[in-house]
Amino acid sequence: MKNDVVMSGMRPTGRLHMGNMMGALTNWVKLQDDYDCFFVVVDWHALTTGYQNTEDLKENIRQMVIDWISVGLDPKKCNIFVQSHVKQHAELHLLLSMITPLSWLERCPTYKEQLKQLESREINTYGFLGYPVLMATDILIYKANKVPVGKDQEAHIELSREISRRFNYIYKPVFPEPEALYTEFKVLPGIDGRKMSKSYDNYIEISAGPEVIKQKVKMMITDPARIRKNDPGHPDICNVYAFYTAFDEQNNIQELKEACEKGQIGCVECKKKLANLIINKMQPIHQKRKELEQNPKTIDDILDNGAKRARLVAEKTLEEVRNAMKI
Amino acid sequence: MKNDVVMSGMRPTGRLHMGNMMGALTNWVKLQDDYDCFFVVVDWHALTTGYQNTEDLKENIRQMVIDWISVGLDPKKCNIFVQSHVKQHAELHLLLSMITPLSWLERCPTYKEQLKQLESREINTYGFLGYPVLMATDILIYKANKVPVGKDQEAHIELSREISRRFNYIYKPVFPEPEALYTEFKVLPGIDGRKMSKSYDNYIEISAGPEVIKQKVKMMITDPARIRKNDPGHPDICNVYAFYTAFDEQNNIQELKEACEKGQIGCVECKKKLANLIINKMQPIHQKRKELEQNPKTIDDILDNGAKRARLVAEKTLEEVRNAMKI
Ligand code: SF4
Ligand code: SF4
Repeated sequence: MKNDVVMSGMRPTGRLHMGNMMGALTNWVKLQDDYDCFFVVVDWHALTTGYQNTEDLKENIRQMVIDWISVGLDPKKCNIFVQSHVKQHAELHLLLSMITPLSWLERCPTYKEQLKQLESREINTYGFLGYPVLMATDILIYKANKVPVGKDQEAHIELSREISRRFNYIYKPVFPEPEALYTEFKVLPGIDGRKMSKSYDNYIEISAGPEVIKQKVKMMITDPARIRKNDPGHPDICNVYAFYTAFDEQNNIQELKEACEKGQIGCVECKKKLANLIINKMQPIHQKRKELEQNPKTIDDILDNGAKRARLVAEKTLEEVRNAMKI
Repeated sequence: MKNDVVMSGMRPTGRLHMGNMMGALTNWVKLQDDYDCFFVVVDWHALTTGYQNTEDLKENIRQMVIDWISVGLDPKKCNIFVQSHVKQHAELHLLLSMITPLSWLERCPTYKEQLKQLESREINTYGFLGYPVLMATDILIYKANKVPVGKDQEAHIELSREISRRFNYIYKPVFPEPEALYTEFKVLPGIDGRKMSKSYDNYIEISAGPEVIKQKVKMMITDPARIRKNDPGHPDICNVYAFYTAFDEQNNIQELKEACEKGQIGCVECKKKLANLIINKMQPIHQKRKELEQNPKTIDDILDNGAKRARLVAEKTLEEVRNAMKI
């Protein structure tokens, strides 16, 4: 029996990259053993900024979930489903919207931040403003008390806590006060050294095959001070080395580090080794991926079953909510 | 086969008064013969301003629906149900919220008006701002093209039209552009001559029995210039006379008017006649009311069946919406 409930969502951006894998996903894979986990593809959230671009939404969901399962999320250990398949989210969102002061949303730092960065005023919709209410709903509907977050999402968790408190105060105690669950995970840089991100084109997809991996590793920026093979290198500012620290669990890095610093290994050779290391590491993941792609029904079934289980929990919470509100 | 679809909602305020009966309800009773009508108890709307007072919500719904049926709404001719029983409203509300510019809601005249009148800032919630999106949802989910409204609600219909157009433009044509359906109906004053309203305590409930009716009619303000029985009266400024014009379908009013103007009838006698007229008129309505109160299951069944039928229509619309949005 797992006591604590974890909820974490991801927008359906399609195929994930190795930065996502080393970050959130590896973390999720660990969490599924110790917590009752709800991992949600938050497709309704995607509409808050992307309502005009829904062409690939369904395929993006599929590809992302394939990545989730391939890297080790196990539907027997955790609940994997799509937000829009559990209509209760919409009902609770509506009910919580009634008690959420407008000022709480307007003062939300990420709202103000995003508003500044908007390319067009078109995005400034009612749903966009209500994003934190929808996020609070995702958490509270499963009575999740632990929410794995990055430091920049603290404000949203705080708002979920405030909404929870306000509901419990006005009606009766139904919701827990969710806490942020900070976990350490490796940050993988992009091949250009910046943060790995789909918007920079500096990423390697989880689904990338051996040839693409080799090619991307070749393109990686290394220590710029190294011109000749036997110039001493500085692994700490080298992307290739950063990948080694993330992928090499056998801890051969110390050896490599020294070789680099002493100018005993060239970057070309070092990259070849890295490419092989990554290819080997990804092999079982790609194998799993291939199976899932060949049997589309498997993902459909996983999501159907996940939604069924999620609905039971969500409906139970909503019954309590309706009773508390006397509606 | 009825071609046009009418949607009209009423907040669950409990027992209705004769002003509601002579106004909206009599109008609805006429509409049910010519249109495919959806008459909705909008309990979620009630939360936009009344989320802190839900104690009597369920009883208020029941009493209001008893009034609806008693005055002649026929569940065989129209769809009668409760908004919160048709969860599809919540889903469509969420989806439409994504495409509704915040500015449309902020500039809504009734929003600005209500905001000024607020007793406490507590009411200024996210849900309160989104009220017109919820109203547009109620209309569009049944593809209603006719919406019976008072002049003061024109802005909301206009917003529903704008949301409909915007959805059809961004995705594909799914919704009609609802039109306001202006209908003439009698306006019954309160016993003090102001508009009959629950907030003025000048109303007579539809469910009021003979004794209450007599008592309320006795309290009615008449022509203040009449002191003695044979003073000439001015029926046009007399409340009692206003009730006659609303209740007397046999058109004996001309006779009464002349008698009053010539000082041939006293106000006491005139009021006694009116009380009897109202009591007779209400007798079959009270009979029906009594039956419904004695068999609570009847109302439950009507609302269950109504919700079932409404869900079918709403779900069909939502399938089109989801397809259009590719979600
Ligand atoms: S040898 Fe390897 S770690 Fe050293 S700079 Fe070159 S690529 Fe980086
Ligand atoms: S006689 Fe009747 S209509 Fe005339 S003033 Fe009196 S109550 Fe009014």
